[in-house]
Amino acid sequence: MTIEIIPIPGLPEVKAGDDVAALIAAAARSAQVALRDGDILVVTQKIVSKAEGRTVDLRTVEPSPLARHIAESGQKDPRQVEVVLRESARIVRMDSGRGVIIAETRHGFVCANAGVDASNVPGEHMVTLLPVDPDASARGIREGLRRALGADLAVIISDTFGRPWRDGLVDVAIGVAGMEAVLDLRGESDTAGKQLKATVVAVADELCSAANLVMGKLARVPAGVVRGYAYQRVDGTARRLVRPPQDDLFRY
Amino acid sequence: MTIEIIPIPGLPEVKAGDDVAALIAAAARSAQVALRDGDILVVTQKIVSKAEGRTVDLRTVEPSPLARHIAESGQKDPRQVEVVLRESARIVRMDSGRGVIIAETRHGFVCANAGVDASNVPGEHMVTLLPVDPDASARGIREGLRRALGADLAVIISDTFGRPWRDGLVDVAIGVAGMEAVLDLRGESDTAGKQLKATVVAVADELCSAANLVMGKLARVPAGVVRGYAYQRVDGTARRLVRPPQDDLFRY
Repeated sequence: MTIEIIPIPGLPEVKAGDDVAALIAAAARSAQVALRDGDILVVTQKIVSKAEGRTVDLRTVEPSPLARHIAESGQKDPRQVEVVLRESARIVRMDSGRGVIIAETRHGFVCANAGVDASNVPGEHMVTLLPVDPDASARGIREGLRRALGADLAVIISDTFGRPWRDGLVDVAIGVAGMEAVLDLRGESDTAGKQLKATVVAVADELCSAANLVMGKLARVPAGVVRGYAYQRVDGTARRLVRPPQDDLFRY
Repeated sequence: MTIEIIPIPGLPEVKAGDDVAALIAAAARSAQVALRDGDILVVTQKIVSKAEGRTVDLRTVEPSPLARHIAESGQKDPRQVEVVLRESARIVRMDSGRGVIIAETRHGFVCANAGVDASNVPGEHMVTLLPVDPDASARGIREGLRRALGADLAVIISDTFGRPWRDGLVDVAIGVAGMEAVLDLRGESDTAGKQLKATVVAVADELCSAANLVMGKLARVPAGVVRGYAYQRVDGTARRLVRPPQDDLFRY
């Protein structure tokens, strides 16, 4: 069955306190995209963080001596480095000379700058943080869409992550509601009749990468719909995509 | 613009010497999928390797003492471990107890078992290796489709990789022909007018993840088409997706 990836353009600049579900429902209507039961809505972290007030004005931040020291060698803003350190549960790798900090967030995600980012945020001194609980953010949008449209969609919050060894960024899932984040094929038989031993597909990540193909960082398209993918309907959580520390060969 | 992801089902079991482009052109015709100029064809590594004879009968393999030692603690087949070692340019991480070998291949890809895999290969003793030159494989399929259909498609060879820190597998690109593997947005301005400093999107990887949504490991759908994504028409190479060692914080 063919899958469609449909952009939802035309959202306004999102402000703290905005109702993301209502904005998306309105933008979809304007774009003549009729959101349906079984659709998967992928929303970028950026607009969710803005709506939840997860922005920081760097002019209010007093950098610590460590933040100053790190910032100095990498020619970064020490106040932004301070925010990154505050958002980090663990520093995984740091290259001060290049100003790169790979950190584990309190959610367990490992990414550059603990998800602190200045792109697509109006204001020279403004950065966004990841949502406090991206699964809850996804659940809230799902509930809002159900109220607005009477339809049951799955909702995924996406963010743009780098990867070790591979160049280039891809979009992955940081919050999930209404679907199982993975497709667990362990124990099933492949086409040659062999039992699959290790095959757990990160479908929520693949859906974010698919949706990113219609979004783009330059156009104001912070949401997209994937239609025609038969997902497993459960409450769901992006925590399923965090590799348990005891299974992670690259934790240290 | 909406993007479509269209499965190409109905391919026969592929054998050494088969013409993958011809098989796909025939399967697409049977499935009434009219392949078009500007389509992106994503083909799984498995059928490409089979067609190129990149399979090994483990009964012909004499394991080295090292392979025997590694296999023993992880309860793996020492002959398969031997093949993994032969396909590796560098062992990145090894957990013998769990039988996990993360290796860099001669192409520069870092993945489990250097891409040696027994799933979806008929015969209890058979494994596949990655193509010797997956870009060349993609080029060959692209040329074959151009001859068969008179249409210029981009072709990507996909494989299924794990990732550090994140659970679950995703499909990524190991061979590319006819398109730029990345979308380089560095120097462009975002919606807030800020210049993007680090944004290089791994679009070939995102296209493989998108295509995987219609493929699946269980159904015999080893190819899919992404239609409606405006890619940059160049010769292209998946080597662009290998992070240069000097930029790789996780090389060691």
